[in-house]
Amino acid sequence: MRSTLLVSASTLLFVSSTSAGFIFPTARNFIYIVPDGYGQSSQTMARDYVSLLRNGENPKAPVTIQLAADKLVIGTVRTQASDNLITDSAASGTAFACGVKSYNNAIGVDPSGAPVGSILEAAKLQGFKTGLVVTSTINHATPAVYAAHVADRNSYEKIAEHEIGYSHPLGPQVDLLLGGGRCYFKPMSDPTSCRKDEIDLFKYAKDKGFRVIQDRAAFDELKKGNAKVAELPYIGLFNDDQLMYEIDRSRVPAKEPSLLQMVETALTSLDRATKSSIKGYFIMIEASRIDHAGHANDPAAHLHEVIMYNDVMNYVREWIDKHSDTVMLSAADHECGGLTLNGFNPLPLKSVSMSIEEVSRLWSAYNGTDRRGYLSSTILPGYGLGDLASSEVDRVLANNKLSTDLTALLSKKAGVNWSTSGHTASDVILHGYGSGWRGQNLRADMAGNWDNTQLPGYIEGVLKVQISKVTKLLRAKGTSWVGKREAGGKDHAHSH
Amino acid sequence: MRSTLLVSASTLLFVSSTSAGFIFPTARNFIYIVPDGYGQSSQTMARDYVSLLRNGENPKAPVTIQLAADKLVIGTVRTQASDNLITDSAASGTAFACGVKSYNNAIGVDPSGAPVGSILEAAKLQGFKTGLVVTSTINHATPAVYAAHVADRNSYEKIAEHEIGYSHPLGPQVDLLLGGGRCYFKPMSDPTSCRKDEIDLFKYAKDKGFRVIQDRAAFDELKKGNAKVAELPYIGLFNDDQLMYEIDRSRVPAKEPSLLQMVETALTSLDRATKSSIKGYFIMIEASRIDHAGHANDPAAHLHEVIMYNDVMNYVREWIDKHSDTVMLSAADHECGGLTLNGFNPLPLKSVSMSIEEVSRLWSAYNGTDRRGYLSSTILPGYGLGDLASSEVDRVLANNKLSTDLTALLSKKAGVNWSTSGHTASDVILHGYGSGWRGQNLRADMAGNWDNTQLPGYIEGVLKVQISKVTKLLRAKGTSWVGKREAGGKDHAHSH
Repeated sequence: MRSTLLVSASTLLFVSSTSAGFIFPTARNFIYIVPDGYGQSSQTMARDYVSLLRNGENPKAPVTIQLAADKLVIGTVRTQASDNLITDSAASGTAFACGVKSYNNAIGVDPSGAPVGSILEAAKLQGFKTGLVVTSTINHATPAVYAAHVADRNSYEKIAEHEIGYSHPLGPQVDLLLGGGRCYFKPMSDPTSCRKDEIDLFKYAKDKGFRVIQDRAAFDELKKGNAKVAELPYIGLFNDDQLMYEIDRSRVPAKEPSLLQMVETALTSLDRATKSSIKGYFIMIEASRIDHAGHANDPAAHLHEVIMYNDVMNYVREWIDKHSDTVMLSAADHECGGLTLNGFNPLPLKSVSMSIEEVSRLWSAYNGTDRRGYLSSTILPGYGLGDLASSEVDRVLANNKLSTDLTALLSKKAGVNWSTSGHTASDVILHGYGSGWRGQNLRADMAGNWDNTQLPGYIEGVLKVQISKVTKLLRAKGTSWVGKREAGGKDHAHSH
Repeated sequence: MRSTLLVSASTLLFVSSTSAGFIFPTARNFIYIVPDGYGQSSQTMARDYVSLLRNGENPKAPVTIQLAADKLVIGTVRTQASDNLITDSAASGTAFACGVKSYNNAIGVDPSGAPVGSILEAAKLQGFKTGLVVTSTINHATPAVYAAHVADRNSYEKIAEHEIGYSHPLGPQVDLLLGGGRCYFKPMSDPTSCRKDEIDLFKYAKDKGFRVIQDRAAFDELKKGNAKVAELPYIGLFNDDQLMYEIDRSRVPAKEPSLLQMVETALTSLDRATKSSIKGYFIMIEASRIDHAGHANDPAAHLHEVIMYNDVMNYVREWIDKHSDTVMLSAADHECGGLTLNGFNPLPLKSVSMSIEEVSRLWSAYNGTDRRGYLSSTILPGYGLGDLASSEVDRVLANNKLSTDLTALLSKKAGVNWSTSGHTASDVILHGYGSGWRGQNLRADMAGNWDNTQLPGYIEGVLKVQISKVTKLLRAKGTSWVGKREAGGKDHAHSH
């Protein structure tokens, strides 16, 4: 795929599908969207839910409304790691970002542990503006692979340092970072820090000219689009940990922007920052927490993350219609949870107003004396199980495994099944969009089944940048700076 | 989709993806392939199995080989029935064949029970040759919808009558039928008949000029391609029931042709029969028993049916390269079994040499005195469980649910999970192929997510035929001839 065949658009009609050549729809900007842990059943679940809610709520007479991602399907993607048929987000992310098949836990390094450049770094090197927008911690595996190179994904502090440029051999690579993970950027003397040293990455960022945003109020200023405030570079982190699930955001005075709000803001900033330059931008957007809800086997939280992903896909599609010099690809890094819809009726998910994460939070925080009453009056109705039989409530209380029991009960009620709390080996769907002839080329070129390592090569062709140039620069600094794999490090592919 | 926009190929480049118009790659021939019950995980399972076998059998260092269907992915298809989020093969088949959303159990009729023409009948009406090639009984739901119109899929005798033209209002519609279901074509006085009347459909077929083939020897004569022998029309049925699973065919002197052998023969016959005519042919090929192995939760039988489907896809692709005036689409009617690959290692499936259907057959037929010995020496090794611990063998014997226990043990060993013995609601993958500009148009037009009812409209555009003309003719005969829905009829979507 790296051997590119650039031909004029007029020859398109007669290029064979089996040709190794691509007719890259050259563009100034590339938007890459990763719905982490989003499987094929995730989309069917969301589409049927939205369709039923708008069409009489009768699963015996369903009428379908397509969601945004539906309209953009172009192929499928294989996901396996170099050392496992089931990938984690690090290996698949490294494939997406760097075009290299690597091991589970690898962040921007190949199987030998040598650093490999990313498509974001390649774009940066050629003068493009760059952005990362996620709902996980910003130093989680999927964003990490675009601007960090460490042997082990669990090296969160090191990843944060790379991402902001503090210890990245090539300095700051990302002009715009939005998401969670604030605690990794604060020195350990700050009580809300999760670092084990005094490195102050927010201070470093400010010194390097970044605007640092740490709350919703400051984000709203940014979002208003005041030209000076929204100038690049900036970093906005709105939670010490992951951002809240979409289903939970509405339950409290909104402290955090939604993924869609962050995307709107980021694209506006990138567009403005590149208005008068030759080169455009590369941005990676991650709907991060589809995966977390899959690990938790939490159907309603999963559903609302998937709907948000579709809202973002819709916004990006409309954005591209207005900014035609832009191409988008989107694929999950892997499926998560082994979701199947085997007796399916999504309507019971309608009354769910919190994630199982929120349930656990409330349940742990409850310090009253009537645990049964609190469960019945607050937790169960909030989790869509207000009609649970009294004997079942007793059983759940006695069993003392609230999360496991409630997610299983809700899943059963909605006719969905999870086969694992980890990932699965299944292919994922590839989506893409370009307007006019760019879209035409994209669909003709990228229909089919791809290895996850093949996608960044396509982006290289569209933006005319080269990852290999970055790899060379990174390796000029040696390889020991990527650190070592942590023995017994957490295995994210196979458990939560 | 029925409002067609035929424009010259030269305008292709600038047709927007969101346009309602299609640039149909007009062709003489259309090949439609239904891998019944084939879900996305089915393909990953088959690909990883084949790849491992050819690449060192080390799941910790996997190297992927693409299978034929991989290269032909173009989109996804929604499958729901008019009365259920989970479809059966009848409703989804009626959508594929007739373009109409109908109820589970419907065969070529709309929700009101009125007949609707099929794409096969529309092609026949315009002078095309037509064929049905399956591994199920020929009067099973998926082939039935192309040439039968009955209110209930369980009306197997009636369906056989329609398919051969005996009681089809428009006479014989299918020039070539290959598959199983012989017993439905023989009068009840024949001891191998499964009819409840004396209608002799083979005799009727002969009277109408069909060559009738009932065994492998006669098929082999056909396959040799002797021009006179292979002349249309013909019907070849090689088993009173379904054809054997592919995994079982090699265990006995081959009595039945494989799906691939039937496809080779059928395409050669159709091609020869239309060589000197203006109109070409329409053929529906079904890899029928992927679904049956899904219902049975039988991983190795499922795997080998999926590999056979890929072999057929490969053959058809090469056929189209040599016969470029031909377009192919292929999509499953639904997923079956809720298959996920959650701890996946397909290597244990290598030693399996029989389906669970064959296991049951052998176990029922065994009349010796050493049941435990027979289980240990013959059944378990044949089913890939030769290493089962002695205590487990005792448990299985005592439990007396051999099929359920062995499929569960084998599935666990291979790290695959089934969530149901019925169908699921998930989308399925759309594949398509055309050579040169036809393929280019096909991919550009048909990328995306489609309702199953939208596909025959595309075939209408390619062949320039109209289903509505057939519907009009069928309804001129009234509607009572389609019969009534059977109260308490078998629900194929939700159980085997």
